[in-house]
Amino acid sequence: MSFSTAKLEHYAMKFARRYLDDHGFFEMFPPRIVRASGACENIDTLFEVAMDGQMDWFKPEGKSSHAYLAQTGQLYLEAFVPELNKTYCVGSSFRAEPKVDERHLTEFTLLEIEFVGNFDQLLRHIEGVIQAMVHGIISLPASEIKDSGLLDRVQKLSILPHKFKKISYDEAIAKLQELGETIHWGDDISSAHEKRLLTEIDNQPLFIVRYPDPIFKRDKEIEVEKFFNMIPDHENAGRVLSADLILPFGGESVGAAARVYQSAEMIDRLKNSKMFARLVEKGGSLDDFKWYINNLEEKGSLPHAGCGFGVARILQWLLGKNSIIDSVTFPSNRGHII
Amino acid sequence: MSFSTAKLEHYAMKFARRYLDDHGFFEMFPPRIVRASGACENIDTLFEVAMDGQMDWFKPEGKSSHAYLAQTGQLYLEAFVPELNKTYCVGSSFRAEPKVDERHLTEFTLLEIEFVGNFDQLLRHIEGVIQAMVHGIISLPASEIKDSGLLDRVQKLSILPHKFKKISYDEAIAKLQELGETIHWGDDISSAHEKRLLTEIDNQPLFIVRYPDPIFKRDKEIEVEKFFNMIPDHENAGRVLSADLILPFGGESVGAAARVYQSAEMIDRLKNSKMFARLVEKGGSLDDFKWYINNLEEKGSLPHAGCGFGVARILQWLLGKNSIIDSVTFPSNRGHII
Repeated sequence: MSFSTAKLEHYAMKFARRYLDDHGFFEMFPPRIVRASGACENIDTLFEVAMDGQMDWFKPEGKSSHAYLAQTGQLYLEAFVPELNKTYCVGSSFRAEPKVDERHLTEFTLLEIEFVGNFDQLLRHIEGVIQAMVHGIISLPASEIKDSGLLDRVQKLSILPHKFKKISYDEAIAKLQELGETIHWGDDISSAHEKRLLTEIDNQPLFIVRYPDPIFKRDKEIEVEKFFNMIPDHENAGRVLSADLILPFGGESVGAAARVYQSAEMIDRLKNSKMFARLVEKGGSLDDFKWYINNLEEKGSLPHAGCGFGVARILQWLLGKNSIIDSVTFPSNRGHII
Repeated sequence: MSFSTAKLEHYAMKFARRYLDDHGFFEMFPPRIVRASGACENIDTLFEVAMDGQMDWFKPEGKSSHAYLAQTGQLYLEAFVPELNKTYCVGSSFRAEPKVDERHLTEFTLLEIEFVGNFDQLLRHIEGVIQAMVHGIISLPASEIKDSGLLDRVQKLSILPHKFKKISYDEAIAKLQELGETIHWGDDISSAHEKRLLTEIDNQPLFIVRYPDPIFKRDKEIEVEKFFNMIPDHENAGRVLSADLILPFGGESVGAAARVYQSAEMIDRLKNSKMFARLVEKGGSLDDFKWYINNLEEKGSLPHAGCGFGVARILQWLLGKNSIIDSVTFPSNRGHII
């Protein structure tokens, strides 16, 4: 438990919130005890909620049901985008990650936004939030910068580019192959590979965009997994309008995409996702998403986009630390809870 | 899921945060998967966290341990009060409340503050936060007040007193007896009794202060349960320096107290609390509080105070609604999760 990370967390979130407030975003408070509609693509790392050892204590609509800890508030924000236009939430994302290492936590603060707009506007908001955090913090009085543990980092952070470099997934794979790395199209880009790409751009933030569409029918199985409701990129068959923001130290720190907003397409993509197949194995069904589907069918939606900022990984970058454990005030993993 | 509650939640929290920011409070992000140090006095309503049906998936310090969903972030804030002086957090408080009714939720937003200061300063901050919410909202453009569902409430809310009325627990019991209610010293004050007291003061907010000390040795068992680390009131033997803020519609909406800050007294009160006896029955021990005790013994503390604002109940009051379910955007109870 460190005093300096506590100050840094406060300032980082304060300046992020100020950006969102200045841009007309509404803060929402989505549930953290959820059905499977609070899962992200890593459905295997869903924690379950029990009471006195009872795994089906909740009885939604009179039927016993498993309850989970939310990994994301995305769908809950998306449901309100037609009315509120710009939304955000801040809260714990829970992941039953068994690894006890420098890269994983079982709980971390996730800042999520969803808004009516397109993919380009999404990238601008991501740059805007990150820049607001950095510029806010480096403009603090020297004593607060010191207390936040950033004295040695101010110089590097002060040359943050206004626009972040951007390469497509296809280009990233080609670049890595050119650099002599063993990687094939369809593979995940590992954190070692991310580091390699960053050294090519003076260790500044990098967007990797337009990942393979996991639902697209192709002759080989791909490794890349992305959330089912990312919208296909109509200019590049078999890709989605997604972006990962890669930061030095933190690695993949923001996951972003334009979203599918028509119900037939949404349901089709959900049913054909790997996540859904695994949900069915766990005893779940389309019923877990009924409220979202009903809402979409009743109210319709608008073209919109959103992302999740993994705050712990952003702090890791701000601090220039190799371990995520040293970058937050209350680190939790399988071997450590308080 | 209602659009107007979403707007109201946003504005209420925005103006509360503005007050805290203006007064130098640091926002913290305490864990929500916790050991028993995240429990409040209602330890019987702790949810457990499981993974694939395994109830002891976490292995803190190599030993299998139950993990719970936090009811409060209080002790986590308290641990940082010596260094940060003024702290707050916003997040879900989880309660395995079996009742499906108009008064209870299994998850609600709790705004908590802890700061170096005394009981009087605590009451001023509570008034300050509530007034900031109300004055902020009623000063919004008419269209936003309408969208937030408050058109019919503005007039009543605009005559909110600057200082809230205050009576002691002892006076409240005497008053209720005088009004013909059947209640004895040591009993809990029910929500019906709270309503009765409010009608006496034109249905404005009311502090009930100086509750019976649950740890005080007396010849009869009392019903009142309060968190173990409330500090004894040295001017009134057998009472603690606590306050509940009672609001029309919402009822008990803020729970507050000055805190014990010396480790020997803290440990003694913890060990003699009903909560601790029940924790031991559940298989817990002093070990669950080890991090807090160690921190207190190493760093010491300062006289401090704090409280938790039950946001859903405050919204219920703002809206003038009888049901808490109609007062939040995503209500959760045993019969309803999404």
